[in-house]
Amino acid sequence: MVNKTILITGAAGFTGRHACSYFAAQGYQVVGTVRAFPVDLPQSPGLRYVVCDLTDYSSVLHLLEQIRPDYILHLGGKNAVKPSWEQPLDYMETNVMGVFYLLEAIRTSGIKARMVLANSRLRFDLTDKPQPNHPYGLSKSLGGTAALCWSRLYGQDIVIGEPGNLIGPGPSTGICSLLGHYISREEQGRSGPPFRLSSGEEKRDFLDVRDAVRAYELLLHSGDSGVIYPICSGHELTLRDTAASFAALSKVPVRIEEDAQSSLKPGSVEPAEQPEALMKLGFQPSVTWEQSVRDIMAYWRSRRD
Amino acid sequence: MVNKTILITGAAGFTGRHACSYFAAQGYQVVGTVRAFPVDLPQSPGLRYVVCDLTDYSSVLHLLEQIRPDYILHLGGKNAVKPSWEQPLDYMETNVMGVFYLLEAIRTSGIKARMVLANSRLRFDLTDKPQPNHPYGLSKSLGGTAALCWSRLYGQDIVIGEPGNLIGPGPSTGICSLLGHYISREEQGRSGPPFRLSSGEEKRDFLDVRDAVRAYELLLHSGDSGVIYPICSGHELTLRDTAASFAALSKVPVRIEEDAQSSLKPGSVEPAEQPEALMKLGFQPSVTWEQSVRDIMAYWRSRRD
Repeated sequence: MVNKTILITGAAGFTGRHACSYFAAQGYQVVGTVRAFPVDLPQSPGLRYVVCDLTDYSSVLHLLEQIRPDYILHLGGKNAVKPSWEQPLDYMETNVMGVFYLLEAIRTSGIKARMVLANSRLRFDLTDKPQPNHPYGLSKSLGGTAALCWSRLYGQDIVIGEPGNLIGPGPSTGICSLLGHYISREEQGRSGPPFRLSSGEEKRDFLDVRDAVRAYELLLHSGDSGVIYPICSGHELTLRDTAASFAALSKVPVRIEEDAQSSLKPGSVEPAEQPEALMKLGFQPSVTWEQSVRDIMAYWRSRRD
Repeated sequence: MVNKTILITGAAGFTGRHACSYFAAQGYQVVGTVRAFPVDLPQSPGLRYVVCDLTDYSSVLHLLEQIRPDYILHLGGKNAVKPSWEQPLDYMETNVMGVFYLLEAIRTSGIKARMVLANSRLRFDLTDKPQPNHPYGLSKSLGGTAALCWSRLYGQDIVIGEPGNLIGPGPSTGICSLLGHYISREEQGRSGPPFRLSSGEEKRDFLDVRDAVRAYELLLHSGDSGVIYPICSGHELTLRDTAASFAALSKVPVRIEEDAQSSLKPGSVEPAEQPEALMKLGFQPSVTWEQSVRDIMAYWRSRRD
């Protein structure tokens, strides 16, 4: 029995759902924040949800004063690249000011909560000559740096995790989820155009979201304050092999096409990032690629949409 | 006759007052934004003021759609180190989100305005191991980087000026202004404790605010988009010599003391930063140190407080 309270923001999100269930099963008292109550949130003993607008400081402060958590896992935020181009202010308010609101609420309420911030591998390095990729990347770059700096200025205990491509059952918008959704629709006879890969050669590091959640727990307990931890598997697959793994489980023939024009230039492939810092804390991915693929397929086959 | 409209934010501030008067005298149509109307704003033909809360996006957007400026000189913001420790959210909302609000308002209103952002030499480099100095420095570091990145993402025309210690007549809170205020009070017979310098050896680069305003005009016309320009004189004075220049103009004996404990360690003095990039655009400081000191003294002697 852990008997600690953890506040998990973004509880209705892909990672948030797994995190809430996992920490509740481990014996934590879990409070998950949601913007509004979706109908299908996971339920379990020790897990409850509260509605909180993370871009409203007084709501965040009130929440922390009520809950007084021992741990905060900040997963909440806006996480899509494409809409960030049209709604950049929403991204900055949520992903930059949202971090400040939580940190300031911790500070002014005098809570001794350790916080793990889920940042993004899609951030870029902030320098005098920055190479921003998109407004989403800008928001995560500023938000992550804001948290690091705040931790130094005010001596607050903050660890930063940077997940790459998290996969698994649930409402993800990543490539594996799209493949699972596509195949389940084909299986249901609702045939569409072929599934298009932007490139067959491009490689991705995939980590199951359930391993990522265990990594977050490790960071909450053993991560070094003020340090950034990549959260990944250290293994890469080409998108071609990724799609083939899903196609192999399909009950019907599926058509997967590659956009030849966007294949990678020779020499543009960097070695896979390794989760060394995490592994030094004892982390080992435990969900196999095959298991992830099966579970993603099962998730989509079980849905009616 | 310039016949261009310039929007100057922070018009009631130390630099803002000089900027509004200067650009109006040059023939620009000047619109200065203030949070509320102070009684003593400079008035001149071609210069008007509007109240605008720069932390309220819809107000900023409405303002830009009304004014449709050719140029924007963004001087508005929070600029003091000490209160930033207690009110960090105000600093982030004003100095980070305030920059985003202006940029997004320019973008969505489709105005082709060139913007010069006045950032601060008190920013620090943003890296994975940042060395933040104070929340004010953090807010300016994030705000300046935000502007650079935005300019790259959306192709907006933004130039960044980084003034050091601006001096001159007006409501500054810098060391020269404090010295002028102190001496004028001593001259009025309202004697206080001695003026204390944190260190006699410490050096500062001072630039007259009227030269800085001309530098901003140069940046608006000739600065390279996406580039940071230091705005300084390239000459440094010790605080001891600074104080001596003011004491020499005093009509009464004044007591200036140095805090011996905080004198600089050998080797900690870096060479003065040079305004090379600005000088390549044709910039030359024109107000002498003696003139600045005389004008600061005249300003404080003319005030009743």
